[in-house]
Amino acid sequence: MSRPPGRKQENHKISRELFVLTYGALVAQLCKDYEKDEDVNTCLDRMGYGIGVRLIDDFLARSAVKKCRSYSETADMIAQVAFKMYLGVTPSVSCSSAAGNEFSLILDKNPLVDFVEELPAERASLCYCNLLCGVIRGALEMVHLAAEVTFLQDRLKGDAVTEIGITFLRKAEDRKHKRN
Amino acid sequence: MSRPPGRKQENHKISRELFVLTYGALVAQLCKDYEKDEDVNTCLDRMGYGIGVRLIDDFLARSAVKKCRSYSETADMIAQVAFKMYLGVTPSVSCSSAAGNEFSLILDKNPLVDFVEELPAERASLCYCNLLCGVIRGALEMVHLAAEVTFLQDRLKGDAVTEIGITFLRKAEDRKHKRN
Repeated sequence: MSRPPGRKQENHKISRELFVLTYGALVAQLCKDYEKDEDVNTCLDRMGYGIGVRLIDDFLARSAVKKCRSYSETADMIAQVAFKMYLGVTPSVSCSSAAGNEFSLILDKNPLVDFVEELPAERASLCYCNLLCGVIRGALEMVHLAAEVTFLQDRLKGDAVTEIGITFLRKAEDRKHKRN
Repeated sequence: MSRPPGRKQENHKISRELFVLTYGALVAQLCKDYEKDEDVNTCLDRMGYGIGVRLIDDFLARSAVKKCRSYSETADMIAQVAFKMYLGVTPSVSCSSAAGNEFSLILDKNPLVDFVEELPAERASLCYCNLLCGVIRGALEMVHLAAEVTFLQDRLKGDAVTEIGITFLRKAEDRKHKRN
């Protein structure tokens, strides 16, 4: 997002609650629109992807971070800079594969579910926060990193923590190289 | 929103961009769901109402404001405290009726439309930010103030500013009293 030069620096900070409740209204609307949880999840992921694709410019401009040199650095950047900036929380990061391309972002507390008590019984397969997976996937794609991003654990479903799994997909060339 | 005592004060601040883009996704979804702009506007207002009804507790707890003694004080509170807190902007306020119950909140810049260039031609009657009217209406109702809240001007429609009109409705008793 470019801003006209010489303009007064704007206040980008807002209170989280309006966002959290607006997100809840969005999920509720999609639950009206789609009977199957899987369709709601897909729709949230797709919306998130579109958001991530646009948000990355804002992120790069405002964070002024340098290019990451490894998947591990990228995962740390998402947790420590992006989550902090956009959601006000910092997940912990763990690497979950020997190959070094699978990471988990672990949230003790998920700010997006502040006003949600639990999922209704008929919505047991809903990934309430699936928008976030799409946002991460879309933003990564814009810096030429293909990734699969999914919820592995969710406190809304009774898990102890909320865990987002990011699997960086090796480039086709890498795979070819390996095979030879 | 009550929080357990003794708990570390949380960071409520987030970056506005994710909210703005998520709101855009919500409006886009409603435009898919409803053919008529009026239906989208009604739906946004209704969603906003539900949000305002829940947000008021958070607002009262965190702003620690005192009870307003006049409509004028209430309008100032919405502009200077609530808008600042939840959207990071402060509209100017003007009173637009001799009776002292009609106010305008005037936004030179509407943060919710950061990423929106203009409304598509076929959506000329869309009140893109109508959720805000519902939020204000819902929150006011929870402090026993009935009001009509609508967009009077909108920069997205070519107006010079964005103007939200708030008309406080006299209580039935007041009206009865007047008539006698």
